[in-house]
Amino acid sequence: MTRSNRISPTSLRSRIMSADDAASLIHDGAVVGMSGFTGSGYPKAVPLALAARIEAQHGAGNPFRVKIWSGASTGPELDGALAKADGIDFRLPYNSDPIAREKINAGEMNYFDMHLSQVAPMAWQGFLGELDTAVIEISGITAEGDLIPSSSVGNNKTWLDRAQKVILEVNSWQSDALNGMHDIYYGTALPPNRLPIPLVNPDDRIGQPHFRVDPDKIVAIVETDTPDRNAPFAAPDATANAIAGHLLEFLRHEVKLGRMPASLLPLQSGVGNVTNAVLSGLMDSPFDNMTAFTEVIQDGMLDLLDAGKLRMASATAFSLSPEAAERFNNDAARYRDKLILRPQEISNHPELVRRLGCVAMNGLIEADIYGNVNSTHVMGSRIQNGIGGSGDFARNAFISIFMTPSTAKGGKISAIVPMASHVDHISQDVQVIVTEQGLADLRGLAPKQKAELIIAKCAHPDYRDALRDYYDRARRSSFGQHAPNVLSEALSWHQRFVETGSMK
Amino acid sequence: MTRSNRISPTSLRSRIMSADDAASLIHDGAVVGMSGFTGSGYPKAVPLALAARIEAQHGAGNPFRVKIWSGASTGPELDGALAKADGIDFRLPYNSDPIAREKINAGEMNYFDMHLSQVAPMAWQGFLGELDTAVIEISGITAEGDLIPSSSVGNNKTWLDRAQKVILEVNSWQSDALNGMHDIYYGTALPPNRLPIPLVNPDDRIGQPHFRVDPDKIVAIVETDTPDRNAPFAAPDATANAIAGHLLEFLRHEVKLGRMPASLLPLQSGVGNVTNAVLSGLMDSPFDNMTAFTEVIQDGMLDLLDAGKLRMASATAFSLSPEAAERFNNDAARYRDKLILRPQEISNHPELVRRLGCVAMNGLIEADIYGNVNSTHVMGSRIQNGIGGSGDFARNAFISIFMTPSTAKGGKISAIVPMASHVDHISQDVQVIVTEQGLADLRGLAPKQKAELIIAKCAHPDYRDALRDYYDRARRSSFGQHAPNVLSEALSWHQRFVETGSMK
Repeated sequence: MTRSNRISPTSLRSRIMSADDAASLIHDGAVVGMSGFTGSGYPKAVPLALAARIEAQHGAGNPFRVKIWSGASTGPELDGALAKADGIDFRLPYNSDPIAREKINAGEMNYFDMHLSQVAPMAWQGFLGELDTAVIEISGITAEGDLIPSSSVGNNKTWLDRAQKVILEVNSWQSDALNGMHDIYYGTALPPNRLPIPLVNPDDRIGQPHFRVDPDKIVAIVETDTPDRNAPFAAPDATANAIAGHLLEFLRHEVKLGRMPASLLPLQSGVGNVTNAVLSGLMDSPFDNMTAFTEVIQDGMLDLLDAGKLRMASATAFSLSPEAAERFNNDAARYRDKLILRPQEISNHPELVRRLGCVAMNGLIEADIYGNVNSTHVMGSRIQNGIGGSGDFARNAFISIFMTPSTAKGGKISAIVPMASHVDHISQDVQVIVTEQGLADLRGLAPKQKAELIIAKCAHPDYRDALRDYYDRARRSSFGQHAPNVLSEALSWHQRFVETGSMK
Repeated sequence: MTRSNRISPTSLRSRIMSADDAASLIHDGAVVGMSGFTGSGYPKAVPLALAARIEAQHGAGNPFRVKIWSGASTGPELDGALAKADGIDFRLPYNSDPIAREKINAGEMNYFDMHLSQVAPMAWQGFLGELDTAVIEISGITAEGDLIPSSSVGNNKTWLDRAQKVILEVNSWQSDALNGMHDIYYGTALPPNRLPIPLVNPDDRIGQPHFRVDPDKIVAIVETDTPDRNAPFAAPDATANAIAGHLLEFLRHEVKLGRMPASLLPLQSGVGNVTNAVLSGLMDSPFDNMTAFTEVIQDGMLDLLDAGKLRMASATAFSLSPEAAERFNNDAARYRDKLILRPQEISNHPELVRRLGCVAMNGLIEADIYGNVNSTHVMGSRIQNGIGGSGDFARNAFISIFMTPSTAKGGKISAIVPMASHVDHISQDVQVIVTEQGLADLRGLAPKQKAELIIAKCAHPDYRDALRDYYDRARRSSFGQHAPNVLSEALSWHQRFVETGSMK
């Protein structure tokens, strides 16, 4: 079975075992820190084996559930398999797995949805409890016993430091040219001992390429050769291209007015169709020498790097299509000089987002007419994914942009509503809203000025009159006229959707 | 008229004039940056004269309104007088003046409610427009022409740098021993030129004691001898003392578990009755050698300094009772070594709040059962004051605590509601809620776990059963069971209050 040329220290080779044997070291009730961020770098064998073990225990009438901490989302072999086995009692800090999502929304799984920058420091604060086991995918072990990270960094440093015992998955599918691309900063501390994070440019390296680990804590090493989840690339549609068009026009305008350098400022973007369109649009833009300081490296960023438009990108993980992953793996040594993967407490650190002045571009589920954004809760109660790093970036960005198609579900849901049914980003943190209809620059505006702009520029024509009607009546009847609302109707669009399947 | 020993450069004495003459330099439509933060250090003569000028113009049928930028709240001579004259077209970033509040809530004044740390950087970004005139209270002018700040710093450095022309009010009521107490940091910049803020302890001095100003921009100097607004000290009542008791017990518990040092971490607190009770409680606490890294210096902090419990306090302004202001003024030279006033972009800087690990203690209007906090909008539409610095601190604090009596208006309003009618602090930024009923430690909990704790620990008994009933029915009927809600009832408590004057 051995591909142990990835495991340099001979002293560790005795700990190589099967995934089943490794999973047997995890007990009912354990708190398990897993690697993984946006479907990359997550362990792929031990969680599957653990799910099988849980199902067997459940079959025998025995309770068996674990608490899972990760970086962000993982893959079907982890969250999907464990959720399907009813094996997750508690999950943090982010989930996008559909089976786990259903369990959460059925009230069968507790989910603690966190700002991604805060996971590591909060784990150190202690109130989350002890971490029993870390299960971490790596791409190799150096002769000195240090760990070569894989395709995401996430909270791995913290899990390795905090866990009582460590299970490693050494994945030979990951390019061995990843070695040297990571920048693992070991200078964090709890207050009162915190110091400035010494990063002033997105390309600064402030740490070391490898994780440290206490070799005595390594209880199992499992060898794998399995690709990351790597969702297929969704080609932008006309709606996404229209959103990107409005946004790029706005950025050109800001550069023209001298409010932003011609190379822009470090870009942060969420993932998905709209982001792909924006990245494509940047290929044809006048902006050169750009940088990214973001969470994930996406397909479009590789294109921008290849074209010389993007100088470099800093992130905590990859989120590539299978084709782009292969392209990266075949040429990793070349990309390595232009990409840096960091712990998510650094990639998302408010101190750094503020200092660098990121241009934050995130998605949303709905925005209300006053510019409050709901990124997480469909109809105010059903979690979609989680807040992720959007709060880290939106509040501290140089400019915080939210992008969305103006409708969803074939037009049955309006992305612009009278009142958001849940709020993740308060109006202060939402400076620009863009839909395919247009762009609303909300900076420096009072609530009623925002409402008029959002309705006029962003709402779909099918909903514009109804929003205008709501707003006009609120202007006449509201308790206060700072941000007028009709309380008895504020959530009626959501109620109508729940009852009829349409907000119309 | 001259008290010009406060104005050392003889070259500037020719610019001494009356407030009326100074106000005549401000034109209709002007954008005016005023000093002032929590009722201290605001200009007291020119705004009154400007209000009179506006009333005269309105009487003559001429339009006259200005845009007012400040640090935070000011005093009746500024926001009150100008609002009464219908002279304010637009106001940022915070207001607590009752007349201005009524104008805003009547829809007659545009109010841009901002994170206080962001005012200065956003003014530099340029999208707020040009600043015509700065009107800044100071306590003197040095022989070198530098300005000795007064009892608040706020955004004065930025207004002095950005304004086309400068009007100074030299207030001899302010102690001349203020000289040397301030720390004005001139190292900020726009990205991509931002550097780490080199402050690692609350007592670090990183700047200079005085403001710079281009003497050619000074168009008027007005001499005053007028006290700050200085609201009377509200002695804590039994409710406030009960809240403080729960909070202090919690802090002792955290220290006992080793999660916080015995000197705690730098304290941040809002103003008011409950805060006074907490500060009083700290007098009898086991904590010594404490520090504060906060917005305002309050009466109780002087007590803690005198008692040797508090080592020092860093803020951007004073907010004292008349008695405490006199006590400070009589002994300012002694307090000067233990107090530092900084620009609000530094006192509230997310980078520093995160690094220092502040213990943030803020008030609220209402919290919902999932821990979302409304600090600003009564019944979802009527602005009370504004978000102020609470967002700067709550998101970045080591621990973010919100404190409130469990009811308001003689029991007719519950501070705990099914759904917040507006959200300023999302549940991720609300870690502890305290009322006189008890304390809910929400850290690491999923939404339903939070709901059960908030209802049990924080709600007033008069509302507890109704909240439990709402939650139980939401558990059965909600669209999603992550954060269950009954959309048709979520805002019904607010609606009932608007209709009947009571949530009951």
